[in-house]
Amino acid sequence: MRLKIKTLKLDAGRPIAFLNESTAKKLHLHIGERVQISNDGQKIIAIADIVKGFLKKDEVSLSQEIMGYLKVSPGDFVDVDFVLPPKSTQFIMNKLAGKTLSRNEIFMIIEDISSNLLTEAEIAYFVSGNYEHGMSMQETFYLTEAMYKTGVNLHWHTKDIVDKHCIGGIAGNRTTPIVVSICAAAGIVMPKTSSRAITSASGTADVMETITKVDFSSKDLQRIVKQTNACLAWGGSLGLAPSDDKLIRVERLLNLDPESQLIASILSKKLSVGSKYVLIDIPFGKNAKVNKKEALELKKKFLKVGKHFGLKMEIILTKGDEPIGNGIGPVLEMKDVLRVLRRDAPHPKDLEEKAILLAGIILEMTKKAGKGLGKMLAREILESGRAYKKFEEIISMQGKKDRELKPARYSYDIKAHSSGKIIAIDNKLTNLLGRVLGCPSDDSAGIYLYKHCKERVKKGEILLTFYAESPKKLREALDLYKKSKVIIIK
Amino acid sequence: MRLKIKTLKLDAGRPIAFLNESTAKKLHLHIGERVQISNDGQKIIAIADIVKGFLKKDEVSLSQEIMGYLKVSPGDFVDVDFVLPPKSTQFIMNKLAGKTLSRNEIFMIIEDISSNLLTEAEIAYFVSGNYEHGMSMQETFYLTEAMYKTGVNLHWHTKDIVDKHCIGGIAGNRTTPIVVSICAAAGIVMPKTSSRAITSASGTADVMETITKVDFSSKDLQRIVKQTNACLAWGGSLGLAPSDDKLIRVERLLNLDPESQLIASILSKKLSVGSKYVLIDIPFGKNAKVNKKEALELKKKFLKVGKHFGLKMEIILTKGDEPIGNGIGPVLEMKDVLRVLRRDAPHPKDLEEKAILLAGIILEMTKKAGKGLGKMLAREILESGRAYKKFEEIISMQGKKDRELKPARYSYDIKAHSSGKIIAIDNKLTNLLGRVLGCPSDDSAGIYLYKHCKERVKKGEILLTFYAESPKKLREALDLYKKSKVIIIK
Repeated sequence: MRLKIKTLKLDAGRPIAFLNESTAKKLHLHIGERVQISNDGQKIIAIADIVKGFLKKDEVSLSQEIMGYLKVSPGDFVDVDFVLPPKSTQFIMNKLAGKTLSRNEIFMIIEDISSNLLTEAEIAYFVSGNYEHGMSMQETFYLTEAMYKTGVNLHWHTKDIVDKHCIGGIAGNRTTPIVVSICAAAGIVMPKTSSRAITSASGTADVMETITKVDFSSKDLQRIVKQTNACLAWGGSLGLAPSDDKLIRVERLLNLDPESQLIASILSKKLSVGSKYVLIDIPFGKNAKVNKKEALELKKKFLKVGKHFGLKMEIILTKGDEPIGNGIGPVLEMKDVLRVLRRDAPHPKDLEEKAILLAGIILEMTKKAGKGLGKMLAREILESGRAYKKFEEIISMQGKKDRELKPARYSYDIKAHSSGKIIAIDNKLTNLLGRVLGCPSDDSAGIYLYKHCKERVKKGEILLTFYAESPKKLREALDLYKKSKVIIIK
Repeated sequence: MRLKIKTLKLDAGRPIAFLNESTAKKLHLHIGERVQISNDGQKIIAIADIVKGFLKKDEVSLSQEIMGYLKVSPGDFVDVDFVLPPKSTQFIMNKLAGKTLSRNEIFMIIEDISSNLLTEAEIAYFVSGNYEHGMSMQETFYLTEAMYKTGVNLHWHTKDIVDKHCIGGIAGNRTTPIVVSICAAAGIVMPKTSSRAITSASGTADVMETITKVDFSSKDLQRIVKQTNACLAWGGSLGLAPSDDKLIRVERLLNLDPESQLIASILSKKLSVGSKYVLIDIPFGKNAKVNKKEALELKKKFLKVGKHFGLKMEIILTKGDEPIGNGIGPVLEMKDVLRVLRRDAPHPKDLEEKAILLAGIILEMTKKAGKGLGKMLAREILESGRAYKKFEEIISMQGKKDRELKPARYSYDIKAHSSGKIIAIDNKLTNLLGRVLGCPSDDSAGIYLYKHCKERVKKGEILLTFYAESPKKLREALDLYKKSKVIIIK
């Protein structure tokens, strides 16, 4: 059907064609189905959306990516036709029925996800298939390869690129800025890209953003890394493994995280950024994403997939029973990080020790320290102030923000209802409380945690302080706190 | 976040809120996530979509249903906040993990689907769970009940309502208008609502639409049925079992059709329209949706679910090895139906016999004919012209269209490449050919089928004629025909 383009100035990040109701009916199209838009031999597939009262029968509105791709402007005519689903839907169906997929099939699925040819429901079927039937080692290799090859790959002035990654789930666990500063100070090249919070109260990119710019082109990153050995940036806009963002968005709807996809997601990103050495931190425990058995299983698979792609990997299992550090929330976590780096007293020892542990492993992996001597060197670099100097250097290259780090203006102290020993602090609830308080968008909102597990408290002693930008959010967090068991004292 | 409403005149049939990119970022929202829109204590959940360059930071565009529900107009302010997914996502997760769902859990899922609170990806997870783990009989009862109770229920001037249904998959199988005409002529009340084509070349509503209006309010339907005993309408706009349309849309992406959902989908619609007697036709065979074993299995389950809801049911298994009748496509099928009703010679005997068989069963179920005498009475009503008279009456009450039924203007004859006996005609390929030729939107496009299975043909004899509105579509159909085995002669 030949239709005239009408402007809508819509750029939804994916190809969408808006059609009038009666046009859609004529094409026997439902919302979410695919149409082919063609002009002069060029074709692109888009998802149809249906509007009433805005477009006429013979008009179509196209999202910007389609207009750019087809080189058309408002007022031009394009052909719009119903198309059948791509072949990859058949392969997804096969996976859902329990079949093993070939390299070609996995590549076609991942390419179609990257090119926006599959709807979120179709991606959900793929995730379901992987969740229900798992993936073989071979399939996981293919998935990882497909994910990184369909995206942008970064290149640096050296091949000896180091990266670290934590599978997540632990509130306040902000070791990355400290580890990167120590390692970069020791001469290691560590172009670290991190994510923003997905379900937690804050991600490393959110924390860094409180004091510096984090969104760069790959060219800018190259310049920053060449100068300072490192960066502490947001990876979201670089186009690394683009299928991964879409898979994560769909997985997250039900908090599904099939193991093969978790591994492929992490390692494809590491391959995209050109890593050679990779340290992966797997926190385990009843409050963490995995228990010890699952952590060991995951470690084995990470090593196999890493080896397949020639990565030099270390996997460390850490205790994930409770939050790390005192601050939960972007500004509060940055304050913890700065206290450790600046050697201010007091500072969170658990955060410092975990950062030293991780940095020590990297120093040994890269032969900057002899076997068994990594932690000592890491501590020395931190205590001497060299790590802080390096951090300042990175921040100033990225563009330091002129701002005072203050917690949000409304606060409320939570006191212990009884005396005893703290036996548990729930990570998930702590993160959820942080979200309710306004994190990460209100970056100075969050929680200050005064105590950790195994510590004794007296009745009436302050356990937590909540910070929020409005009394309403404070009240909501308090309601949630009262209804749930965040801290257990016995 | 307090935002000002900007008009977009968008009515996408579901609650959508359009936000500026930076506003979405501030709310930490991604496309497809949920927001709560509130005004004056009234709240509604909407799906977020993100636009660039149309809205300012402090503006939001809302789809019409939201504006109506919250009683707001462009220029008013509303609160827009991120909300966590509804509880039903947890129950979907449980199903995907293989757990059995309770009545309350199934009701919450179906209610949330009906109210547009679940995304298509979340619905896909529910479909996957049902596909992978099946549903118990009890769960199927709950699903059926939830599906019809969350929608509109129709009421008539009598309780003795009769309905028929075919599980589909057979090209050209247009018995409904004939069966309804025969039964209504015998005094049976049969308010038949049908669907449009989903994946086939045409649905009963598409075929009826070639000669009459099919889209009515429930009030109009009551008037038509009171006058004529029957209707032959489209059920799509009546709001019957609204979750079903959404489930079907998502299932269809991968042609999934979990058995429990198939049963619940059909029986919830029958319960919504107030049926007491239901005849279900299950075509089986290698070309049909199910084989004989599956058909028998399905029959057993249909009877159990029907009994649970107090329906008087008959299930008939019919041969589904090949298309029925000569015409495939809305106009061509209506011509077949009219030839049978008008007793024109020649007319498709297979279509006539199947219609008589089905009508006969209904006449016996409703005691209009004694046991074993239904077919005889059905034939008599058809041959006497009473069925045609009733058909004309229904059509004229619905609003007859003044139009000549002519096949599309471009045609091409397909001739036999060899002499022999026809041993197979593929239903799926026939339907697909119909789609490629332009069905159902080009309602006069389609296929005329001269021969059926077991008939002998000579080399060069015409097997099929293709009809299309453009030479391009004719060529595409011919290409597909050449590449596939639609008719097998041996």
